[in-house]
Amino acid sequence: MAVDRLSDDDIKARLPGLPEWSLRDGVLYRAFRFSDFSEAFGFMARVALEAERLDHHPEWQNVYNQVQISLTTHDAGGISDRDFELAQRIDALLP
Amino acid sequence: MAVDRLSDDDIKARLPGLPEWSLRDGVLYRAFRFSDFSEAFGFMARVALEAERLDHHPEWQNVYNQVQISLTTHDAGGISDRDFELAQRIDALLP
Repeated sequence: MAVDRLSDDDIKARLPGLPEWSLRDGVLYRAFRFSDFSEAFGFMARVALEAERLDHHPEWQNVYNQVQISLTTHDAGGISDRDFELAQRIDALLP
Repeated sequence: MAVDRLSDDDIKARLPGLPEWSLRDGVLYRAFRFSDFSEAFGFMARVALEAERLDHHPEWQNVYNQVQISLTTHDAGGISDRDFELAQRIDALLP
């Protein structure tokens, strides 16, 4: 399924809807901090299920209680609707 | 529990026992490639359980079917026995 890259104006218009996310090196980025590894990885497992359901996957890294997620759509050459959709679903997982 | 940093000589002596791992910027590093995200994250879940069991956690990143793991022991200021132990357990998870 082809996905369109969002324009810079589109992205700026939609970013306020995700106040914890920022544009960083052309990707949608958010850092998370949990109480420990168990909580961080539990969150990652839930993100993984959402990603698989959407067939859209994050670039992410984890060190102990910290998780950093970068969202971009390689097929679109930039940020697309799917990145905003996944970001919203990720946020919805948080308490 | 205090953990000693291994000397450079110790590390060099033990690296041949982990032929897929290399020293990279002072950490024990290995990259993995799987068939898809599901397989990659399934592997990560198993690594997470080993890490929790050892109470020693990786620095790692994932993009779709690729996983990169860096092992170091912050409390020791370098690579310790625990990194080699976790690396061995990670390798043992692979087919």
